[in-house]
Amino acid sequence: PWQRSTYDFFVPDKLREEMQKKMFAMQQQLPMPGTLPRLDHYFALFPLDTTNRKNTASFGYPSWMYKAMSSRNGRYFALRRLEGYRLTNENAVLSVVKDWKRVKNANIVSVHEMFTTREFGDSSLIFVYDYHPNSKTLLEQHPQANARYRGAQPVPEQVLWSYICQIANALKAIHSFNLAARCLEPSKIIVDKNRIRLAACSILDVVNFESNKRPVQELQMEDLVKFGKVILSLATATPMSRLDVSSALESLTPKYSTTLKEALTWLILPGPGEFKTIHSFIGGISNQLADFLDLAFHDRDEIYSQFARELENGRVARIMMKLAAINDREGVPGNPEWSNTGDRYQLKLFRDYVFHQVDAEGKPVLSIGHMLSCLNKLDAGTDELVMLISRDEKMVYVPSYRELKQMLDRSFNELVKLSKHGASGAN
Amino acid sequence: PWQRSTYDFFVPDKLREEMQKKMFAMQQQLPMPGTLPRLDHYFALFPLDTTNRKNTASFGYPSWMYKAMSSRNGRYFALRRLEGYRLTNENAVLSVVKDWKRVKNANIVSVHEMFTTREFGDSSLIFVYDYHPNSKTLLEQHPQANARYRGAQPVPEQVLWSYICQIANALKAIHSFNLAARCLEPSKIIVDKNRIRLAACSILDVVNFESNKRPVQELQMEDLVKFGKVILSLATATPMSRLDVSSALESLTPKYSTTLKEALTWLILPGPGEFKTIHSFIGGISNQLADFLDLAFHDRDEIYSQFARELENGRVARIMMKLAAINDREGVPGNPEWSNTGDRYQLKLFRDYVFHQVDAEGKPVLSIGHMLSCLNKLDAGTDELVMLISRDEKMVYVPSYRELKQMLDRSFNELVKLSKHGASGAN
Ligand SMILES: Nc1ncnc2c1ncn2[C@@H]1O[C@H](COP(=O)(O)OP(=O)(O)OP(=O)(O)O)[C@@H](O)[C@H]1O
Ligand SMILES: Nc1ncnc2c1ncn2[C@@H]1O[C@H](COP(=O)(O)OP(=O)(O)OP(=O)(O)O)[C@@H](O)[C@H]1O
Ligand SMILES: [Mg+2]
Ligand SMILES: [Mg+2]
Repeated sequence: PWQRSTYDFFVPDKLREEMQKKMFAMQQQLPMPGTLPRLDHYFALFPLDTTNRKNTASFGYPSWMYKAMSSRNGRYFALRRLEGYRLTNENAVLSVVKDWKRVKNANIVSVHEMFTTREFGDSSLIFVYDYHPNSKTLLEQHPQANARYRGAQPVPEQVLWSYICQIANALKAIHSFNLAARCLEPSKIIVDKNRIRLAACSILDVVNFESNKRPVQELQMEDLVKFGKVILSLATATPMSRLDVSSALESLTPKYSTTLKEALTWLILPGPGEFKTIHSFIGGISNQLADFLDLAFHDRDEIYSQFARELENGRVARIMMKLAAINDREGVPGNPEWSNTGDRYQLKLFRDYVFHQVDAEGKPVLSIGHMLSCLNKLDAGTDELVMLISRDEKMVYVPSYRELKQMLDRSFNELVKLSKHGASGAN
Repeated sequence: PWQRSTYDFFVPDKLREEMQKKMFAMQQQLPMPGTLPRLDHYFALFPLDTTNRKNTASFGYPSWMYKAMSSRNGRYFALRRLEGYRLTNENAVLSVVKDWKRVKNANIVSVHEMFTTREFGDSSLIFVYDYHPNSKTLLEQHPQANARYRGAQPVPEQVLWSYICQIANALKAIHSFNLAARCLEPSKIIVDKNRIRLAACSILDVVNFESNKRPVQELQMEDLVKFGKVILSLATATPMSRLDVSSALESLTPKYSTTLKEALTWLILPGPGEFKTIHSFIGGISNQLADFLDLAFHDRDEIYSQFARELENGRVARIMMKLAAINDREGVPGNPEWSNTGDRYQLKLFRDYVFHQVDAEGKPVLSIGHMLSCLNKLDAGTDELVMLISRDEKMVYVPSYRELKQMLDRSFNELVKLSKHGASGAN
């Protein structure tokens, strides 16, 4: 994993493409700015919904998702707007936010704040979440769970187990804070490759703050049932609201293992008097959890080793910026010939050597491998010698990379000293 | 996690330093090459042992660790040499390698091959493993587990649980292939930050191939006992060989939780007639496993988002290389003025604009933020316009970044066409 040839330096790979797509998704802007309002310190709103359908199924109010940037820290957030919601109890928002801010879990979208706004021309309640670029909902990812797609390929058992492990992880955290997820359905769980996150926590706590003062234990038991139904819905390609539980459970055989069927049965059907908790469920899926842990490690190791490769790019970029700031500069105060004299002259010839190689006929030789290897040696300051020949071929210098590195640093420091503000971030 | 200011672009952070240290460890060479022999396709051997002590405790033979590069694929491997070992049964090696090559687990150092050699002047057996740069053994990491350090800080409970989860993950994989770890001790487990890996698998299978034909179930049961003792040794700062199990278990209270004590007791002491398996152990630690999974996710997310940042460096490096290959080039065949004319002239002025900014007094302004933002816009080809003024201030051009990007690509492609070999890896 720690190995590379120069040739794969710039080869785009899946991970890199994926990250770039995320970067683009994050930076996406509306063609006509100002179409959507600014909400306090959140601006540059961009709609994330993929349909215009006003759906009240999840919260009793239509809801809309936007990404927005905060002017406080320049970071992006995901905002959910509950349209037409009139907040009657300010304390609801305060106490719910306080509770949920403590929950930090890899399978839960973190909640930041809530506020009301009239900027949309109605009375709306806004929930602010972490923004996870390029996420889809589980329903978008597996249209199987939607009746219209009946007959599609079933979701593979391993994928279902990975969801089970992750939702279990999320519920464990939520229940341990004496809270309940409440909103647990495929359209409110987002997925990014194989990672899933509960995406609508805290909303029903606010909406049902007054009307629905049920004991949290009861809501937690309900979470377990909904958890089972989310998976059953994906496994049987039936919308959650239309599940006929016992026949759906039966239909799992023979497509899925009996272990899966037993786990879902345990979650959904009332057991013989026992008090169900997410802890006892986790005890039952421990071996799947261990397998999943191993997968998570492999994923992490893959990212880590690709990162190590990329690091080299960073070092190369930094050293090229310094070189570019020096080479061919139109003099410095009091010394119009600065960039053609002294250290700078050798650095200029070095630039020619690295980037302007020609063959015997004077044709350009463009070898990224040559450029990279030279720049890496310069960065490392090796003792290897380089032969630099002046353009008129009258002068030859043979500095080591170590000396060239010293010249580079000296020259760049001269520029830094001459500049009023120094070079922010240049080390 | 997807956010950054320009200021942290080049700020070295822990992860980057760690990766660089690994890179250096990997590339380390002996000052006098040739001190250590070449072993078949493995060359550039470099000793990894930190003492010269001939220790026969683990395998019955002294053993030595080296890193080496394979000339077959340019990758590094870790070799363990069993000094003075005389192989009597070739089949032992073949069948053991075949078994272990199937085991791929995030908490096990992968086994590649085994061979005998006389290159060290004796008869040695070499085991080839994955090389994990900058690893330490658990014993080196926690000298507490060594009697000489008695009285040191106890290993925190959370760390012990992370080891327990990981060794459980390793044993689950090993036992599922009908194998046993056999060599399970703090000096033969390597650690890299919080990740641990069993580092001496397969060796005792070879060494005891003839003499010790015990049923694998028995060896697996022994693995569980050793597993418990490894943790108990770390928890009580007692070398494994000198553990008095029952008093050591007693001494865990009150420093550690009863859950930990119960888990270790289960592993080490014979239970009431039950048949112990790693699976039943995993069932008992499922909640710690879930917590550990969440930590593993967070670790992965941290690496991922740092990687995303670094990616930007890669894009910037690529675009700067193209610019550097064009700017100020001493002509091309048939056109000595190439780099000062046409597209290239504007690219030259753009280079001045990006890298050679000066203030009203002609002093250099070195803002990495300005450079980065310009280069990112160039890479993205945005519609924003740039005002480029010639050095004599007689000409003004106002191209968009999109147009500049087209000029860059056109000019670079001209060079590529002129060059015989094209530009390998330049996209
Ligand atoms: N925190 C988030 N970060 C990034 N994208 C998100 C986030 N939360 C939701 N999304 C995305 O926003 C889009 C809209 O989400 P929403 O929950 O409204 O789904 P929906 O299918 O429109 O359901 P409904 O009909 O209930 O509105 C989805 O594509 C979802 O993946
Ligand atoms: N696969 C590996 N990759 C990288 N380093 C390793 C690997 N395996 C072991 N090492 C390192 O090599 C060094 C020597 O390992 P070794 O197992 O010989 O430990 P030791 O303390 O010398 O024990 P002993 O006294 O039994 O030889 C340790 O620092 C260890 O971290
Ligand atoms: Mg919606
Ligand atoms: Mg050793």
